Amino acid sequence: MSLKVRTDSGFADMRAVWFEGGRLMMIDQRELPRRVAVAGFSDHASAAEAIRNMTTRGAPSIGAAAAYAMCLAALSGSDLREAAACVRSARPTANDLFYAVDFMLGELDGGADPVEAADRYADGIVEKCAKIGEHGAHLIRDGAKVMTHCNAGALATVDVGTALSPIRRAWAEGRRFSVYVSETRPRLQGMQLTAWELGQEGIDHAIIPDGASAHFMSKGVDLVIVGADRIAANGDFANKIGTLDKAIAARRFGVPFYVAAPASTFDPATASGEDIEIEHRSEAEVTEILGERIAPEGSPALNPAFDVTPAELVTGFITEAGVLKPAEIGRLRA
Amino acid sequence: MSLKVRTDSGFADMRAVWFEGGRLMMIDQRELPRRVAVAGFSDHASAAEAIRNMTTRGAPSIGAAAAYAMCLAALSGSDLREAAACVRSARPTANDLFYAVDFMLGELDGGADPVEAADRYADGIVEKCAKIGEHGAHLIRDGAKVMTHCNAGALATVDVGTALSPIRRAWAEGRRFSVYVSETRPRLQGMQLTAWELGQEGIDHAIIPDGASAHFMSKGVDLVIVGADRIAANGDFANKIGTLDKAIAARRFGVPFYVAAPASTFDPATASGEDIEIEHRSEAEVTEILGERIAPEGSPALNPAFDVTPAELVTGFITEAGVLKPAEIGRLRA
Repeated sequence: MSLKVRTDSGFADMRAVWFEGGRLMMIDQRELPRRVAVAGFSDHASAAEAIRNMTTRGAPSIGAAAAYAMCLAALSGSDLREAAACVRSARPTANDLFYAVDFMLGELDGGADPVEAADRYADGIVEKCAKIGEHGAHLIRDGAKVMTHCNAGALATVDVGTALSPIRRAWAEGRRFSVYVSETRPRLQGMQLTAWELGQEGIDHAIIPDGASAHFMSKGVDLVIVGADRIAANGDFANKIGTLDKAIAARRFGVPFYVAAPASTFDPATASGEDIEIEHRSEAEVTEILGERIAPEGSPALNPAFDVTPAELVTGFITEAGVLKPAEIGRLRA
Repeated sequence: MSLKVRTDSGFADMRAVWFEGGRLMMIDQRELPRRVAVAGFSDHASAAEAIRNMTTRGAPSIGAAAAYAMCLAALSGSDLREAAACVRSARPTANDLFYAVDFMLGELDGGADPVEAADRYADGIVEKCAKIGEHGAHLIRDGAKVMTHCNAGALATVDVGTALSPIRRAWAEGRRFSVYVSETRPRLQGMQLTAWELGQEGIDHAIIPDGASAHFMSKGVDLVIVGADRIAANGDFANKIGTLDKAIAARRFGVPFYVAAPASTFDPATASGEDIEIEHRSEAEVTEILGERIAPEGSPALNPAFDVTPAELVTGFITEAGVLKPAEIGRLRA
């Protein structure tokens, strides 16, 4: 159930983010699906920059990278409060980033070994993702049509995935079904990361334009599973732009809509979706592709990276503690 | 109110499709926004191919191109029934294609001059589009936020536009507002055609990813205006993929949702949306961009060109005869 990468001699089992030889290592997700490139970072500032420029992305992978960034700061004897501020400033929306920095500050203050603590954080994510798969796999029946958005797979979560964890597990249990992967403009994480992950393992899938979601739901989709970047105390959640459209369409067509996330993505300090800061990224992500401008000269673009979906559109949260209704998430302990 | 193209010496007034020197001429929309290229066709078969390969597109422009294709067939003494079959087979969804071929067969059977008849057909579209603007402009207030999808502008309708006609007219009347242009994957007609048209005339606009529609509606949009490719007798309509998502989101957020189309797009012979044939185009439109594959090798894609929106989600149809409720379209005469 870990991230399998096809190689000339079979499969390599990899993680999206790990620590090796004193460096934070990560798959450079900006190079996928063209090639599997690995980038290494020796200090917390360059690790924070790798989060900012999306060398790695996905809330739990961002959390693990942040934990290792704090580990690098501790190993080099940097001021931990300054390092924490640097890492926290990398991106604003994913709760896991802040959660991981706080976790490491507590561990380091308590005298923990930096590498051991950060590895424990990353291992904890992987364990939680595996449990998400155990709890969610039964939702996917033989012959089902499943829809997902963006990448909430192993790349986004160190390994295994959140939304892709029940999909991987149901497939491993022998059920056969197909996955609609919405391409996820502007950065195409659905097309370039999720389709790539599913293709590595031979899981049946098809890429669709983001605007085709409602069309396919109108023809019959059995469930939607997405990840989340931050889940507020009331169950409203932020996820990749395009999630809200799907949740609204799913409600109209009676399609169950699930959010898969570990407890670290739940933020009890954020009361509701209105309190979640939405990152706005550069116009160029929309108006350029492959380095070439595809929009008319002079036409501006808007690029909110996330939207907020209200709790009432969520059928259930698939967590390491089980599948919870929005009204039940208060019982979750990170 | 006609299509203005910025040139070194000011503006040129152009049409998307016209007849000149014995040839069907059209702006090659596949070259926009990079350059304004004009393509010419001397026989009905190459004109049909230009419809198929989307040198011109948009239901009313397809209709005009089909009328001129039949004109070319008549001028060359071709068998008109064979020519009609060839032109009809170019694309399956837009009603205007079939409507225009039938119009020309009737005119030619009645002894009309081929060029005069086809010009009359094209002029009729432009007149109807201007009336759509007159009837719809009052819907756009000063300071409004308007959303549109794909290109239902002058490029799509010989001149003036359907969805863009009320927008052009409201702007010409001096009201100032902004237009959210959803980019319209996979072929990017929103980004590359609508934004280009609005930019030529200085109408305030911003390109958004298709998946950002619901997000911006949740922040406040005053109305959505889209075009249509075919409107069934019950008011269900086919339009560019991504329209249904917007109609569903508009209903949720209480945003009025208008469809702008001339009578030639209404098809009384099609009972409901279930009876509309949806064109499925090539995977490469999704998986390649600028001639380069951007999807993982081996990952398939699905590319329905249109979706069907039920009549109950339509606030009104803006036609040359006025703004009609779905229950009132039976009174429309093409």
